[in-house]
Amino acid sequence: MIIVADNLQIVNPVVAEAVSLLDPEPIRHLVLSCQQAGAQAIDINPGPLPKTPGKYFSFLVETVQRATSLPLVLDTTNPDALESGLRVCRRPAVINGFSLEPVKLERILPLAAEYDADIIGYLLGPGSQVPIEEDHMMALAVELYDAFCRTGLEPQRLIIDPIIVPLRWDNGLRHNQAVLKVIRTLPDLLGAPVRTIAGISNLASGPVPVKRKIELECAFLPMLASAGLDMALFNVFHQPSVHTAGLCEALLGDNVFVI
Amino acid sequence: MIIVADNLQIVNPVVAEAVSLLDPEPIRHLVLSCQQAGAQAIDINPGPLPKTPGKYFSFLVETVQRATSLPLVLDTTNPDALESGLRVCRRPAVINGFSLEPVKLERILPLAAEYDADIIGYLLGPGSQVPIEEDHMMALAVELYDAFCRTGLEPQRLIIDPIIVPLRWDNGLRHNQAVLKVIRTLPDLLGAPVRTIAGISNLASGPVPVKRKIELECAFLPMLASAGLDMALFNVFHQPSVHTAGLCEALLGDNVFVI
Repeated sequence: MIIVADNLQIVNPVVAEAVSLLDPEPIRHLVLSCQQAGAQAIDINPGPLPKTPGKYFSFLVETVQRATSLPLVLDTTNPDALESGLRVCRRPAVINGFSLEPVKLERILPLAAEYDADIIGYLLGPGSQVPIEEDHMMALAVELYDAFCRTGLEPQRLIIDPIIVPLRWDNGLRHNQAVLKVIRTLPDLLGAPVRTIAGISNLASGPVPVKRKIELECAFLPMLASAGLDMALFNVFHQPSVHTAGLCEALLGDNVFVI
Repeated sequence: MIIVADNLQIVNPVVAEAVSLLDPEPIRHLVLSCQQAGAQAIDINPGPLPKTPGKYFSFLVETVQRATSLPLVLDTTNPDALESGLRVCRRPAVINGFSLEPVKLERILPLAAEYDADIIGYLLGPGSQVPIEEDHMMALAVELYDAFCRTGLEPQRLIIDPIIVPLRWDNGLRHNQAVLKVIRTLPDLLGAPVRTIAGISNLASGPVPVKRKIELECAFLPMLASAGLDMALFNVFHQPSVHTAGLCEALLGDNVFVI
């Protein structure tokens, strides 16, 4: 299970200021801290971008790839910004991501083939509705996979995100339980080696004490890992969560010197 | 997932001395501490018993049932001791346990029907060999279930223990990974509502630092829970493990106020 840091977000005021000033140093510092904390890939989430999105997003991508050799996950809903980022990215990138929403199918998905990138596909309805039931998620996965296949990319380039939702939401608990089943079942259902990713930070998002957030992450991560999750996106400064992800690797891997 | 304390063991010198003196007080104290720590059932493991095993085991059962109203798990390989314990036990008990070993089939299993008790069945070969591969475990489960059915008890009275082994063992890691699959698959395989139990303390048994033992338990417990484990047997003085078991219940249950 690859640990993807979701720390590089515009909601972090340090990131927001650095982006507005096009100052690489605070970004560089944050990325190195993430790497030191155990990140194995860096998600770059610029949030809503100002008038010249390409300029800001390509600045971020360029700054991060100068700071680290880790893989990059380009996380923006803005197709123009995304393309600017892909253009400057000098290593294999992951696009985060597309869904069945028409604008995503038309503007985001084709960029995966054009820039030979892996791409994350969200299990959301065409109007971005979050499905609750496993059957609905499975049906969306089939549609998403079909749309992806039309790009001509190999199945393993698709990374499906079944969308962990906040436990506080109505049906959040039931939805997240269905996510476990979907992760376990997807490769068989699709008959293809697609991968999966989940955003663990969503689980306890909102006004929840950090200690409680972390303990919920540490209990849910092993469930996701044993269901077969390939990539986990979370705050790598939650050190117990990083440590737990490592233990999951040990317990589910093939290194006999686990203990 | 029911938390069963495995703390009441003869390897604990306090227990050993209390049993040899037939002194109930230290046992009572230990049982109450287990209950306070979160135990939902108490496993009574007298280890190898002296010449009059019935006397010592029935003393233990009597002492524990006077100390607590929690369910009791009668954990001895000695059929005479077990029967003495069952005779004095005034509440539904769980026998721990039988296997395909002929002496267990002949002397332990019939006691379940005779005393109307639930019974744990170990996935071990007739010579007590531990299987490594999932297929072998499944074949043993079918044999065990068939033997159990001949008692005439309902399927839900059988609790299968797929035997977690120490990670230090050759093939220990692979075996324990197979255990996860077996727990998930058993009810479908047998087509019956049998339950499952696992002894988590085995995972890191031996000279492993307590901190490491606990963190391995806390990573493996959610995997077992999401595979469908019904009962977890471990040292309830490992408070993070107890806490994790509670979080698993919350994440896999139906109480929407989990957060």
